[in-house]
Amino acid sequence: MRYENVKGTKDFNPEEMEKRQYIIDVIRKTFEEFGFVEIDTPCLEKWEILSKKGTGGEGILEETYKFEDKSKALIGLRYDLTVPLARFVAMNKKLPLPFKRYQIGKVWRYGDVSKGRLREFLQADIDIVGAESILADAEVLACASFALRKLKIDFLIRINSRKVLNSIMKKVGIKNEFVNDVLRSIDKLDKISEDEVKKELFSKGFSRDVIENIFEMIKSNPNELKVDGIDELNKLSEYLKLFDVKNFKIDFSLARGLDYYTGPIFEIVSKNKNIGSIAGGGRYDNLIELFSSEKIPATGISLGIERIFEILSDYPKKKRIFVALSNEDVFEDAIKIVKMLREKFYVDYDLKGRKLSKQMEYANARKFSIVIIVGKRDLENKEVTVRDMESGEEKKIKIENLESFLEGYLELV
Amino acid sequence: MRYENVKGTKDFNPEEMEKRQYIIDVIRKTFEEFGFVEIDTPCLEKWEILSKKGTGGEGILEETYKFEDKSKALIGLRYDLTVPLARFVAMNKKLPLPFKRYQIGKVWRYGDVSKGRLREFLQADIDIVGAESILADAEVLACASFALRKLKIDFLIRINSRKVLNSIMKKVGIKNEFVNDVLRSIDKLDKISEDEVKKELFSKGFSRDVIENIFEMIKSNPNELKVDGIDELNKLSEYLKLFDVKNFKIDFSLARGLDYYTGPIFEIVSKNKNIGSIAGGGRYDNLIELFSSEKIPATGISLGIERIFEILSDYPKKKRIFVALSNEDVFEDAIKIVKMLREKFYVDYDLKGRKLSKQMEYANARKFSIVIIVGKRDLENKEVTVRDMESGEEKKIKIENLESFLEGYLELV
Repeated sequence: MRYENVKGTKDFNPEEMEKRQYIIDVIRKTFEEFGFVEIDTPCLEKWEILSKKGTGGEGILEETYKFEDKSKALIGLRYDLTVPLARFVAMNKKLPLPFKRYQIGKVWRYGDVSKGRLREFLQADIDIVGAESILADAEVLACASFALRKLKIDFLIRINSRKVLNSIMKKVGIKNEFVNDVLRSIDKLDKISEDEVKKELFSKGFSRDVIENIFEMIKSNPNELKVDGIDELNKLSEYLKLFDVKNFKIDFSLARGLDYYTGPIFEIVSKNKNIGSIAGGGRYDNLIELFSSEKIPATGISLGIERIFEILSDYPKKKRIFVALSNEDVFEDAIKIVKMLREKFYVDYDLKGRKLSKQMEYANARKFSIVIIVGKRDLENKEVTVRDMESGEEKKIKIENLESFLEGYLELV
Repeated sequence: MRYENVKGTKDFNPEEMEKRQYIIDVIRKTFEEFGFVEIDTPCLEKWEILSKKGTGGEGILEETYKFEDKSKALIGLRYDLTVPLARFVAMNKKLPLPFKRYQIGKVWRYGDVSKGRLREFLQADIDIVGAESILADAEVLACASFALRKLKIDFLIRINSRKVLNSIMKKVGIKNEFVNDVLRSIDKLDKISEDEVKKELFSKGFSRDVIENIFEMIKSNPNELKVDGIDELNKLSEYLKLFDVKNFKIDFSLARGLDYYTGPIFEIVSKNKNIGSIAGGGRYDNLIELFSSEKIPATGISLGIERIFEILSDYPKKKRIFVALSNEDVFEDAIKIVKMLREKFYVDYDLKGRKLSKQMEYANARKFSIVIIVGKRDLENKEVTVRDMESGEEKKIKIENLESFLEGYLELV
């Protein structure tokens, strides 16, 4: 019998995890530098919370994993980290505001997996709760930018505003109740062609005239379009420049799928690889109110770790050391060396009592950077042989100098 | 309306997450030092994998979250990280063995939540796949011990062997098919009294004589009990001493609930707090064979992060800096200082344009270690005021010296 993963989920092997963990470490560090603090919320949320009107919207609820537990409680796997944050804020009324939190965790969406999208994937979110100033939107964008910059990813930030889009809708005569429907179609512009989006809107019952009007406006020059929300976008641009973030452009065709956005919206795309957005977010001033009795403004961005993983090709690899035994007699001395080195380095040794040649094969297959060979004669001279596995060079080193030798050596390689 | 978490799940606030992340960091680092490499497997597994005969056993399957996805595929949330590892190994036939992997992730069990147990909880596992030597069991125990030692937790390792328990069962005349049933009752000895366990066994249909015999043997002196598996336990003791692990004892009453153990089993308990085991594991030489056609021995241990979290009271706190603005005029200069300091420190500032006194209140509520006050007159002298929030002391520092001052200062506090 052949076993396999649940469709849309995947295993990460050690090499992949080293890369993934590197990405997470860089992102986490940047989040902390920007003063964000971490929370964790459960993967399981009550269905009544995930499905509350005004959260993700119908589209996303169709994709949400939903089940009854043994007590018949209706439960869902979270589809993002924002709705759980809104619940968290509502349940913790005494948080000093603004509350700047980050969270890194898996979310689940039962969507199409054909385009390399996963159904279980990792998000890294920062959000600022309780600040109505556009400065907060700039802060989250600057933070996300810095993280991606540290990862040496070449990216472009696309910026728009739900206020602008709503004004456009109003101008072309779309009724409020259909606005989200139109925006969900426009949001597909990065995946399907303009013509296909137009066809979709037509099939949704909008007239050709209205559709052409919409497209004319979303393609107009940011400096010329006179609608609500434009001032906020200009303010956002100013703040971004103040933070040395320059690679952004205002793009009225950006819509973002989720229903809860109210102000600026943003998306970050890779310049080198066409794999959809690597981050997305925006201002959602009404979401927390759904759970709390208070109106609390909020804005945030979510980095898609899976997409960043796909883009990133180069990252620093960990250097690992293998201690090989020339024969069983040196076992206790070898363990002493292993114990000593583990205080500073990543150290492994043979657990199977194999011959030296087999140990070298194993160390090679596991891509250890350095093998330390512990031999009986060397031990008499209080030394060991250190082999660089890439160059094949070997050196005898006194055991008392081994630690400092390796420190210098591993810094050099 | 009041909102709440799914029963048995909990939010971790920033203070709690800082502690939790500290625990994870220490554990992860120790795992890496011992040469373990990380993998990640999905939270969702096919039900056929989780429920395969010989994996967790009936008790645990009753506690497993199980549901159909939209394609009617039967899916479960993983109840441990060991069964997914077995599937992973079976699906990756070319792994160089021994394969030493670690994984840190959430698992789910729909169990009793009354004793502070959660239904969604975090485990940190190390396992060695492909090494039959007891040295591998010692290696995982040594690694877990070192991690707990670094966390300054006072603990005791309890060790037993399924081989020993099976021999005892054979000696007292328990048939093979009832052995797991008896072991599951014995496993409760750390939670309920000896009398209650005896009653449970009696109600399961075992005779008083047999029950008394079992208890006599599991309470006997390790040096006197002559059964299979004793030699392995002695070997394990020797290896542990070689690794400077001394705080362990052989305890024949330890059983461990999971069905898949075959050799040495172990459990780590806190010496200071009576909250059940903080780690548990053992050898499971037949589990991987269930998924693979090959027989591949394995051993491992799982650290319960939630329990360690409960025990740990002291850990190093992060030092955060808040940049306060005396008034709006200094905004751009303040942002420059924020940008400069964020290269090295955790830095936040006011996003609401509040008065200085309100900013100080906020910095106080969020427990920042240091506030840097940017004032107009100070700026003319190219300096800022640095306030230690604990002592209340203030100092004027030249901006060009600010970074190095803070480096020295934060090291001192």
